[in-house]
Amino acid sequence: ISTGGKTNKLSNVIKCKAAVAWEPNKPVVIEEIEVAPPQDGEVRIKIVATSVCHSDLYHLFENIHKDGFPVVLGHEAAGIVESVGPGVTEFQPGDKVIPLFLSQCKECRFCKHPKTNVCEKSWSEIRIDAMSPLDSRFTCKGKKVYQFSGTSTFSEYTVVRQINLTKIDPAAPLDKVCLLSCGICTGYGAAVNTAEVKEGSTCAVFGLGAVGLAAVMGCKNAGAKRIIAVDTNPDKFEKAKVFGANEFVNPKDHDKPISQVLSEMTNGGVDYSLECVGNVEVMRSALESTVQGWGVSVIVGWNMHEFSGQPIKLITGRTWKGALFGGFKSKDGVPEMVKAYMNKKLMVDEFITHNLTLDQINDAIEMMKHGKCIRTVLNVSPQ
Amino acid sequence: ISTGGKTNKLSNVIKCKAAVAWEPNKPVVIEEIEVAPPQDGEVRIKIVATSVCHSDLYHLFENIHKDGFPVVLGHEAAGIVESVGPGVTEFQPGDKVIPLFLSQCKECRFCKHPKTNVCEKSWSEIRIDAMSPLDSRFTCKGKKVYQFSGTSTFSEYTVVRQINLTKIDPAAPLDKVCLLSCGICTGYGAAVNTAEVKEGSTCAVFGLGAVGLAAVMGCKNAGAKRIIAVDTNPDKFEKAKVFGANEFVNPKDHDKPISQVLSEMTNGGVDYSLECVGNVEVMRSALESTVQGWGVSVIVGWNMHEFSGQPIKLITGRTWKGALFGGFKSKDGVPEMVKAYMNKKLMVDEFITHNLTLDQINDAIEMMKHGKCIRTVLNVSPQ
Repeated sequence: ISTGGKTNKLSNVIKCKAAVAWEPNKPVVIEEIEVAPPQDGEVRIKIVATSVCHSDLYHLFENIHKDGFPVVLGHEAAGIVESVGPGVTEFQPGDKVIPLFLSQCKECRFCKHPKTNVCEKSWSEIRIDAMSPLDSRFTCKGKKVYQFSGTSTFSEYTVVRQINLTKIDPAAPLDKVCLLSCGICTGYGAAVNTAEVKEGSTCAVFGLGAVGLAAVMGCKNAGAKRIIAVDTNPDKFEKAKVFGANEFVNPKDHDKPISQVLSEMTNGGVDYSLECVGNVEVMRSALESTVQGWGVSVIVGWNMHEFSGQPIKLITGRTWKGALFGGFKSKDGVPEMVKAYMNKKLMVDEFITHNLTLDQINDAIEMMKHGKCIRTVLNVSPQ
Repeated sequence: ISTGGKTNKLSNVIKCKAAVAWEPNKPVVIEEIEVAPPQDGEVRIKIVATSVCHSDLYHLFENIHKDGFPVVLGHEAAGIVESVGPGVTEFQPGDKVIPLFLSQCKECRFCKHPKTNVCEKSWSEIRIDAMSPLDSRFTCKGKKVYQFSGTSTFSEYTVVRQINLTKIDPAAPLDKVCLLSCGICTGYGAAVNTAEVKEGSTCAVFGLGAVGLAAVMGCKNAGAKRIIAVDTNPDKFEKAKVFGANEFVNPKDHDKPISQVLSEMTNGGVDYSLECVGNVEVMRSALESTVQGWGVSVIVGWNMHEFSGQPIKLITGRTWKGALFGGFKSKDGVPEMVKAYMNKKLMVDEFITHNLTLDQINDAIEMMKHGKCIRTVLNVSPQ
């Protein structure tokens, strides 16, 4: 199988290596695919580094969209612009970029509203787990291969809309800042932008994967005094400490509901809770763990099931919110986060537990599936 | 049966008329009861006017607290201080007052917090539907009779804690401003204080009882442009118009879910929705009727059942809140609302559809039960 991408000069189609998910619940397969040239408003990029995120696994294993195969998954990445389609003025070949699963068109009423990042040209909410609106530019063995969430980064090359791409500091190490493409911003922003954690407050973060750890870091950077890290796997507490957690609770150590444990630890509940698991029972617990009067709970994790709850929990003054991509307007927010990393105001390296190559992607998927890594960065192409 | 109250000079016990609920699901009975003198920090008041609110019916008919009988219900009222217990300096006999089911002690961390009205000395949330912490001052036929929600206003005299009482403009007509003791503040404040409805916005109010109509008035006074009144009883639309509603939807007129109807009417959903029914299905519909990105839904109605919902509705940027007594700090807020009424900035008279006497309370209960009134004011004692 080719590496590095071969361009057919005539058709401008690139043949390159990609991890194709042919069907649900099966290992992905490294194949040679064809990547068509970018069309109007699109950009073709060389992926330098990508990492595996739970949303990729969700699509692969949860069978929500059985029709969404074959597909190239992957949405957390960084790369370099290879070529641009007609009408693209914002990018040029050689630009260092980060693909954005959440678009920012800057023209719709959502992009123009100061308080939301839910771009109208992204998926609509009912399609959030569906294919992106981008018509796929991929084929493999004569078959159309879908793109995933507007990106598809488990490939040496991919094509994205210019509204799904942002330019970053050319000095940024792509094999690190690729993590700012999803998980870190999602957790960090949920604390900083959505919960709006205040200085001196008490926070609880449920789930200590990359998103939860980033939420811990967000609480810390916002000046929270007590940051209670909650996970059923106590092995994760050491890492949470690195990001700023200073108390640790394993629900398995207690006979009573975790909300009651937290309430007793904090004289009535925490000021802010962040659900970074994607489990509807945990969402409810997170809400119930906040203090009446002013408690704010933010759903960060993603799940298609339904939550339940008691009206009184809200009536007595709690607020229930949610965040997609940490509330960051993607095109504006990601370069700012890259800058914060370059200025040492944000930890990124600390999330990376493993470095592998694209060929080893199934190992990365298995590790994530079994909670054996925080983030595995796959080095796809040389910078 | 006595009227006007007879004081036994020696014991200082008042014998007076009250409506006693001896058991659930039965008409209340006008009885002569004994009202003991106010103890430390308590105030005995003559009730001039009281009205029937759904929470009274809830206690009487929903059988949540079977042990909570016999009881004198009633919490929406206005009256005059008769006597004060030891340590009471804020009130003196003759003061015109409104009893507050929600206390404001001004000392607890909730009272000191600018953003909540959930006084720690009020019921705790798990006891919201239970008896008030006030040890009852009522007896009837040798039996202890419970007090309800810290007040018990279906009586010629009652005893409340000073933290459950507020002094109002002595010029205020008590048979009108009694409505500011619960329903009107609850709905109005939910729009103004909790949803924080902005000028030019689009709002939907679900349920057009007194609370819903007050919410409509709140939206109107906050400058909302479109106020969509939703009720399955179209007879209520005329009244809603009086308070400022300018569009009307009867869910029974539509085959599709009401959230979809509202979404289509408003290009994606309303900015604010207020649930004033107390039904968990409506709570869900109200949330789903708001626009993604910045929609805010407030639960105002009370229900012991559980709601359900989809995480994605919050993740895409909606906020779910609730309000108790419209977010008003009770002792501070009610006199302000009385002032607004006196200055003609607030409608109150328009809520009153019937005037009866305490003896006719079962008629008032039946009318409310069958949705045949907005508010019935019971004239209890002369001013």
